[in-house]
Amino acid sequence: MGLAANDGAGSESMIGVGVIGYGYWGPNLVRNFAWSDAARVVAVADRRDARLGEVRRRFPGVRVTTAPEDLIADPAVDAVAIATPVATHHALALAALRAGKHVLVEKPLASSARECAQLVDEAAARRLTLMVDHTFVYTPAVRRMRELVETGEIGDIYYFDSVRINLGLFQPDVNVLWDLAVHDLSIMDFVLAREPLAVSATGVAHVPGEQENIAYLTMFFADKVIGHVHANWLAPVKVRRTLIGGSRRMIVFDDLEASEKIKVYDRGVSLAPGPESRHQMQVGYRAGDVWSPQLAVTEGLQIAVAHFIECVTAGTTPITDGAAGLRLVRLLETATASMAARGATIELQVPA
Amino acid sequence: MGLAANDGAGSESMIGVGVIGYGYWGPNLVRNFAWSDAARVVAVADRRDARLGEVRRRFPGVRVTTAPEDLIADPAVDAVAIATPVATHHALALAALRAGKHVLVEKPLASSARECAQLVDEAAARRLTLMVDHTFVYTPAVRRMRELVETGEIGDIYYFDSVRINLGLFQPDVNVLWDLAVHDLSIMDFVLAREPLAVSATGVAHVPGEQENIAYLTMFFADKVIGHVHANWLAPVKVRRTLIGGSRRMIVFDDLEASEKIKVYDRGVSLAPGPESRHQMQVGYRAGDVWSPQLAVTEGLQIAVAHFIECVTAGTTPITDGAAGLRLVRLLETATASMAARGATIELQVPA
Amino acid sequence: MGLAANDGAGSESMIGVGVIGYGYWGPNLVRNFAWSDAARVVAVADRRDARLGEVRRRFPGVRVTTAPEDLIADPAVDAVAIATPVATHHALALAALRAGKHVLVEKPLASSARECAQLVDEAAARRLTLMVDHTFVYTPAVRRMRELVETGEIGDIYYFDSVRINLGLFQPDVNVLWDLAVHDLSIMDFVLAREPLAVSATGVAHVPGEQENIAYLTMFFADKVIGHVHANWLAPVKVRRTLIGGSRRMIVFDDLEASEKIKVYDRGVSLAPGPESRHQMQVGYRAGDVWSPQLAVTEGLQIAVAHFIECVTAGTTPITDGAAGLRLVRLLETATASMAARGATIELQVPA
Amino acid sequence: MGLAANDGAGSESMIGVGVIGYGYWGPNLVRNFAWSDAARVVAVADRRDARLGEVRRRFPGVRVTTAPEDLIADPAVDAVAIATPVATHHALALAALRAGKHVLVEKPLASSARECAQLVDEAAARRLTLMVDHTFVYTPAVRRMRELVETGEIGDIYYFDSVRINLGLFQPDVNVLWDLAVHDLSIMDFVLAREPLAVSATGVAHVPGEQENIAYLTMFFADKVIGHVHANWLAPVKVRRTLIGGSRRMIVFDDLEASEKIKVYDRGVSLAPGPESRHQMQVGYRAGDVWSPQLAVTEGLQIAVAHFIECVTAGTTPITDGAAGLRLVRLLETATASMAARGATIELQVPA
Repeated sequence: MGLAANDGAGSESMIGVGVIGYGYWGPNLVRNFAWSDAARVVAVADRRDARLGEVRRRFPGVRVTTAPEDLIADPAVDAVAIATPVATHHALALAALRAGKHVLVEKPLASSARECAQLVDEAAARRLTLMVDHTFVYTPAVRRMRELVETGEIGDIYYFDSVRINLGLFQPDVNVLWDLAVHDLSIMDFVLAREPLAVSATGVAHVPGEQENIAYLTMFFADKVIGHVHANWLAPVKVRRTLIGGSRRMIVFDDLEASEKIKVYDRGVSLAPGPESRHQMQVGYRAGDVWSPQLAVTEGLQIAVAHFIECVTAGTTPITDGAAGLRLVRLLETATASMAARGATIELQVPA
Repeated sequence: MGLAANDGAGSESMIGVGVIGYGYWGPNLVRNFAWSDAARVVAVADRRDARLGEVRRRFPGVRVTTAPEDLIADPAVDAVAIATPVATHHALALAALRAGKHVLVEKPLASSARECAQLVDEAAARRLTLMVDHTFVYTPAVRRMRELVETGEIGDIYYFDSVRINLGLFQPDVNVLWDLAVHDLSIMDFVLAREPLAVSATGVAHVPGEQENIAYLTMFFADKVIGHVHANWLAPVKVRRTLIGGSRRMIVFDDLEASEKIKVYDRGVSLAPGPESRHQMQVGYRAGDVWSPQLAVTEGLQIAVAHFIECVTAGTTPITDGAAGLRLVRLLETATASMAARGATIELQVPA
Repeated sequence: MGLAANDGAGSESMIGVGVIGYGYWGPNLVRNFAWSDAARVVAVADRRDARLGEVRRRFPGVRVTTAPEDLIADPAVDAVAIATPVATHHALALAALRAGKHVLVEKPLASSARECAQLVDEAAARRLTLMVDHTFVYTPAVRRMRELVETGEIGDIYYFDSVRINLGLFQPDVNVLWDLAVHDLSIMDFVLAREPLAVSATGVAHVPGEQENIAYLTMFFADKVIGHVHANWLAPVKVRRTLIGGSRRMIVFDDLEASEKIKVYDRGVSLAPGPESRHQMQVGYRAGDVWSPQLAVTEGLQIAVAHFIECVTAGTTPITDGAAGLRLVRLLETATASMAARGATIELQVPA
Repeated sequence: MGLAANDGAGSESMIGVGVIGYGYWGPNLVRNFAWSDAARVVAVADRRDARLGEVRRRFPGVRVTTAPEDLIADPAVDAVAIATPVATHHALALAALRAGKHVLVEKPLASSARECAQLVDEAAARRLTLMVDHTFVYTPAVRRMRELVETGEIGDIYYFDSVRINLGLFQPDVNVLWDLAVHDLSIMDFVLAREPLAVSATGVAHVPGEQENIAYLTMFFADKVIGHVHANWLAPVKVRRTLIGGSRRMIVFDDLEASEKIKVYDRGVSLAPGPESRHQMQVGYRAGDVWSPQLAVTEGLQIAVAHFIECVTAGTTPITDGAAGLRLVRLLETATASMAARGATIELQVPA
């Protein structure tokens, strides 16, 4: 075979995707949609012309625009992926849904529970797919943790404790809970499959005029389950570690580990009658083996993008649908209110 | 030189020490006093006769008794070290002080701020040394951190965050804050040299009839300084890690590291006017070198014991005196109250 | 601005690059050349048509071919990058040089010192750039180590010890030294800037009919400097760690560390007269601080590609030129001979 | 019970032990014998009077002497433990055996295979226990590895690779193989239970007048099994890591890990017919789960001391008997000869 022009033929039957926002996460979305067999990237929009230059160079053939409304109006666009600042999610997603497009929105879904509810209703009314990109839910590690909990391997859940800290850019429009803790909360929401009843959050904004850059969030569940997230933009080291304590086993999920991301510990408390003092011998502990299951190395976003395309095609409900996005935003809203009240416990307002 | 009987001669001029409690920590106290050049262990008391058998075997020549009152009454005993359950600290220390003995008490000093205050007053009235064994304060690592903060190397303090978790024995008489977090609080008290104004704590007791085995404690200080401790008896892994964030540098103290326990990070936020958006460019971050100072490998308890002997001999005030013990117990009391109120913020009652 | 066709305009003035081999490393070369501002990928060749399908999808506009000779003959191709099995390097590189193209070859440069020498001569005669992709030489970490050695910070070099092990694909045409150790040797060649005088290598081929999958290579230098590399395709864990011992300081380079890849230890031996025994006190050791310099996070290959383009444009000699490639292949050839002789020491035949 | 004189009664029926050498390791021997229920320390000898002062203080009642011959002659001494420089092992052990004492010698057993053989013969002739303190053999981790190999869990052995490096005191009388590698070799000897056929070792003495401080030792076994040890007194970091590669599973033993010292990897090569090229597909790899067995935390030396006492009492043969000591010294002797010949392979002279 000699040299042949490479025209990318065959792409016409794929789902046409438009990506709005080409900042930090947008390029990952474009790459994953572009490399998918079932979708093609039709257009990319970003208000900053300089960002579009990179799209031109890397993805010749993809249309670029500084006007998201043009992208939304483009008839070749079947689905819109939104990776812009949180404050703009609601308006862009609503416009896309109203234009009859399926929508994938970066986390968090919107700025308030009210906004989320409106998007959920709009998508339902139009029978369009609305998915929020809680990427971690699609990683092999988190799916495996869900399995371990679901099958009873872990036993009764005692606690969920997650730390997500690093030296990171201060976000202008949200506090560190909305930026970092949202990941831990999405993992918790999926793995535990239960909702907290009340929250108590504390935090501080160290830079004048900015939002909280360090935050601690406790969540109270039924059955004495407790959840906690520590999120911090001002830490010298990067930590991404989640502990799940259960009555039978415990899990450590360290996302920075290259190969043993999940470890399952056959450890816990054991209750036995004590000969000497009622208490001291009654509660002992079991220390057994440690086991680290082999995990696929597929990127979470690749699986998320494939799931979105599949839901759009088949008309099925995404795992991280609008309702999941709403649950998390409601939690973040309440936590932010508690933080403003220096840790005052606030019950979650779950609509009946 | 031929074989000679080893009579331990010369020990008469040393300070005579009696150790009450030969459970988990008592043997360490006995060993450190026994190996000191300036003290000798005269007697050991423990209610459990089986424990005394080990003393007999390891330390022939040391008197043993199941009656602490006999030890306190022993005229050869100049100082009493107390390593018994917390609930008994107050009565034993008070009896020892009233018998004219200097006293070293395991952390926490006593069960309540009121009890602590009484011990402080008694020791002051009798001009006796009262020291609480906040061992970590005497470790080379913690002393170095104090220096780094004191000299301004770290800049303005932003936060103190400490995690102390492992799979440990449930204590019958105290919750996990009193057992584990007390270490972090003693480090914080010494390194920051300032007191919190209010606390918000959350926690759960997973075993019926037991005290809280997992707890999260937030402390609010003046100047937007925030402190946090996570203590947990039911964790699958052992973690002992403290982060101190400052405006100039940040410290990570990992006590499980064999050789690089302290790392100083030349990292932080930098404020600069942003060309594009007011916010996003204004708060950037600095990422510089990391530096790990060489530390002596002396055991903290060895230094603490030497400090106690020196204070007894010279009549000077210990670094971790009764007042330090009182500060921590007041904090633990308040935290326990907040935890019972699901995180309600409670102002600390600091006497004028 | 509305939607505009993205034609990748402006790329005509760039250096035209053809990449031969689209297996494991080829995609990285294509990506880095494609994303460079100074080059454009004109064509990609691979004998396997299936591999070219991926090029078509990801890089529409790039010509693809199963015939490398067509790519070499293409007048739009100014430079050829070769990422094929080692056995084919010589023939492809020679053909490209003879066609007047500049050449970048994956490590190792060729299958024998004789082949390398021929390529070096051909490139010199035609005044073309010949560069071997010793990628690690271009990483910020390795460049920093070179600086530390060059400036005398480390003192006199004592040893270079490198471990590169993991569970990896057995290569059909080369043993594990040619596949893995070549990286360590390229780092050693650049950082120490001196050549070994003799080698002793041992190794075993555990799979019948295959080449050695585990190997240990000792290199003897002048001045009692010793070098050692452990390479292993059959290790359960991935290790990439290099130690450089010097008279003043020591370096640990751990390439798997996310943020502190290089640590400089202020540690070593100290010589002092001993009071008691001549020996035991004479050689003590110094244990001082540890320091980890901040490094840029740029990908080594990106810098290598930029360096190649710059050398082609300016006619300058690459850091990893043909002579560097020859030095390493000569070393690998000799090591393989020593390994076949169960560790027999072989002097390196360095041409005068 | 009131205060009672603690006379250590009951110790008369125990085995009387004399410890020669109270330098680095001697105190550990004294402590373990002293704390054992079945032995008591009768006397300690050390040429340095200053060292004996510490014995006097810590172990009142134990006789001390600067003359080992007096200790050996002491009728209360049933067994002699020797922890002196290697050069003195043979003479002291021989004298003790000739005086009818059971003997425990620190590793390595003696300075030469000839010396070792004489001790083995002397002990056999007199029906006395001769044990060499290959402490690691008695640790729970190493015993577990032996089980894993013995039961076939690991499959056919492919390699044994061990690294033991740190910044350590240069020993005056032995090179780094005799000081550090002896540990790895004792582990290898016990776990693999097979002897190498030939060795090739390389190393350098960086300090004039001293022995080699860095060494690499390859061992060739039957069935393509290869062993390797890297020992280094001049490393900036402490590493103690052993890899055992097998056809079914692989082990990583990291002695510096607090809780997961042993990890068993369900990983290895898999052989399968390849569709495209004969080779590349034929040898793939399997990557499965990782498993870390729970281990007891007993100190190896405590088990070794108990084993010695038991062998003395019951007249049974120690696991690490004189023959094991001889095997290792023969290996060290041969390795030292190979090192002097810059890696020349030397067959091991195993007597028929």
